Amino acid sequence: MPTTSPTFSSTGQRASSPTIARLMTMALEKPGMLSLSAGFTDNLSLPVEAVREATLSLLSRPGEPEYLQYGTNQGRPLLRELLARRLLRTDPGAGELADLASRCLVTNGSQQALYLAVQVLCDAGDIILVDRPSYFVFLEMLAGLGIRALSIPTDSNGATDLPALTKLLASLKASGEASRLKAIYFVSYFSNPSSRSLPEDEKCGLARVLRDAGLVLPVIEDAAYRELYYTRPHPARSVLELPEWEGFPRLYLATLTKTFATGLKIGYGFCSDRAWLAKMLAVKGHHDFGSCHFAQAICELVIGNGAFDTQLRRVRDLYQAKMLALHRTLEREGLRDLGWTWEEPAGGLYLWLKAPASLDTSMDSAFCKACLDAGVIYVPGELCFGDNAPRNQVRLSFGVLPLKDLEEAARRFVKVARHT
Amino acid sequence: MPTTSPTFSSTGQRASSPTIARLMTMALEKPGMLSLSAGFTDNLSLPVEAVREATLSLLSRPGEPEYLQYGTNQGRPLLRELLARRLLRTDPGAGELADLASRCLVTNGSQQALYLAVQVLCDAGDIILVDRPSYFVFLEMLAGLGIRALSIPTDSNGATDLPALTKLLASLKASGEASRLKAIYFVSYFSNPSSRSLPEDEKCGLARVLRDAGLVLPVIEDAAYRELYYTRPHPARSVLELPEWEGFPRLYLATLTKTFATGLKIGYGFCSDRAWLAKMLAVKGHHDFGSCHFAQAICELVIGNGAFDTQLRRVRDLYQAKMLALHRTLEREGLRDLGWTWEEPAGGLYLWLKAPASLDTSMDSAFCKACLDAGVIYVPGELCFGDNAPRNQVRLSFGVLPLKDLEEAARRFVKVARHT
Repeated sequence: MPTTSPTFSSTGQRASSPTIARLMTMALEKPGMLSLSAGFTDNLSLPVEAVREATLSLLSRPGEPEYLQYGTNQGRPLLRELLARRLLRTDPGAGELADLASRCLVTNGSQQALYLAVQVLCDAGDIILVDRPSYFVFLEMLAGLGIRALSIPTDSNGATDLPALTKLLASLKASGEASRLKAIYFVSYFSNPSSRSLPEDEKCGLARVLRDAGLVLPVIEDAAYRELYYTRPHPARSVLELPEWEGFPRLYLATLTKTFATGLKIGYGFCSDRAWLAKMLAVKGHHDFGSCHFAQAICELVIGNGAFDTQLRRVRDLYQAKMLALHRTLEREGLRDLGWTWEEPAGGLYLWLKAPASLDTSMDSAFCKACLDAGVIYVPGELCFGDNAPRNQVRLSFGVLPLKDLEEAARRFVKVARHT
Repeated sequence: MPTTSPTFSSTGQRASSPTIARLMTMALEKPGMLSLSAGFTDNLSLPVEAVREATLSLLSRPGEPEYLQYGTNQGRPLLRELLARRLLRTDPGAGELADLASRCLVTNGSQQALYLAVQVLCDAGDIILVDRPSYFVFLEMLAGLGIRALSIPTDSNGATDLPALTKLLASLKASGEASRLKAIYFVSYFSNPSSRSLPEDEKCGLARVLRDAGLVLPVIEDAAYRELYYTRPHPARSVLELPEWEGFPRLYLATLTKTFATGLKIGYGFCSDRAWLAKMLAVKGHHDFGSCHFAQAICELVIGNGAFDTQLRRVRDLYQAKMLALHRTLEREGLRDLGWTWEEPAGGLYLWLKAPASLDTSMDSAFCKACLDAGVIYVPGELCFGDNAPRNQVRLSFGVLPLKDLEEAARRFVKVARHT
């Protein structure tokens, strides 16, 4: 019987396998490949003991094993309260504890929160302002939903160019496109991919420029890496705390996966706007009516008993050591002498490299192919831009590989850079 | 600073708190309320020991704790293989093991699979054929996406009325709406809400009528309750097995939550159509790039070591006993004498009652209010219809309450029926 293929919706028509999947496939095809591409966490430091203790404690609780039953769509109340309490440590002005907990939603990683936020705000053809560079999975999600990503202008140092943003907004108003502008998004601490943190004055400047333009848009602050600093937190306050952002509908997102265990897949957000939150929760009810309840209960326990903070301290040191192994090997092998530049990160999981302007490091470049041949793989930087993507930037992840492999990967990378 | 409210997308505008949430809220407000509404599972029979054993076994594995790391977007390969192997027990013609495993996707409960399936097939304004009655969370999801649910016609016994379906399809073609018809959906075993199983001849008849009308549409078979039979499986084969459905793009959905632990939130599906599967996976990559990996690893272990089947046998007996407690108390208290009718289920978690035609049992009815006042709550049947909803039907769930409470709830219910 011949098979009839379905016709797809506009979402279905746009849906395509992410570009990064192509890279991963290429990587898997070659034995001995060292991957600096995946944003995975360190396998050997995953919190086996903390999860064992939490699980046993849960499973020994007297009474009904409610943690194996459906939970609520919004997330476990005690977990939301613990997350609110944590936020108040860094942002004491973010709200009153109970109120903040009631404005928390627990999601399948912070990715689902991003999806929900955008799905209820934007139709195909709408525009979101994004940082430059930005989180490429978010950019691919926008493309999948038919939403246009428009970069927040930056200067040559990567700092927010507020006068240029003012001009950009004016031109959108002049062209009639300002009505399609629905939100602003940025990764504010130890960013994926750039490892840059948004200084408080830039964050406040963004709010001022938007307000001056009459565009009091919903803002999505992605703080996924905020707690993954190496020695000290970045001093900037969040949009929930800063008076400049008052009056804007604000969604502050974070996650327990990068900081604790990616395998538990629990992210969360706090939303200042009740209507926006209600819409996201209604759609979440249709997506899945609640994230894995057992994983939420484990997270609740490890935050409550301090194991989460212990793990955080452990991975901070570990990721700093890994960063240094990669960073210093690249320096020692002479990558800077070849005209490459990068900043040493103060947190996060990524090195963000700029090759000389004449060197093409993009997905289909000879350089990228030479790296694959040499047994090292990276994320081509052009994936991380909403528009006007430069083709000479590179994201290197150091979360997964052990120290010795990071050094070997760096040596392979520099060798290719030297001979391309 | 005054707050500016966001403007919402078309999805956001349609998103609203589900009607069932209103009922739950009413229930929580009254102490001593006995709920026959939530489709939750039995708390005391949740598989604490099986989860403990699986978790300890996982956490004691030598090597890297990959189960605490990100998994793949599609789901754990071994879990998919085990699920394929299970399916082949009932549907040996569904495919070859490795091929079937490659066409499996693991989701956040089967709800996410429903969402993905529909999201990639339908735009707002499209139409899906649904069984009558149908799963009300699916119907609310369709409403949220702006999709019209059109009932598959049934006769007065609830059987599929194939001649009426032929006429309906002809009228859709005549009106030009057939091009908006994008899929057909039904809950085929011990249905939520009706507990009815679709006999094989009706299932095959549906395929014939669609094919004769030239509508070889994607079909979504929701088999969530297939394994929850009480004494023997329902004999109908699935759409993956039946030759009549060959050539149709087919998505067969099931879940490990109702059968094992709702708190783990792991559902799954098998898709006959590679293009449809690829689209769903691409969108899942944007939703969350993979379901809770730890919960998947637990499911993999309990299926592999037999604990899953042990638990299934246990809950089959339990749910039969619960069904009988509710069913027999309703009979003994004289509900049939008051003109109510229902079938005794052979599986599943629901009794589906028809009140006398003159009695309104809908959400805002005097009967519903009287039940709330009497301390018993149910799901008004009109929520379970895509169109032309009768207002005298009632879904009673017996999954949650212990036997004594089920009997008391039944007594309260009949008392209200007697005096309304």
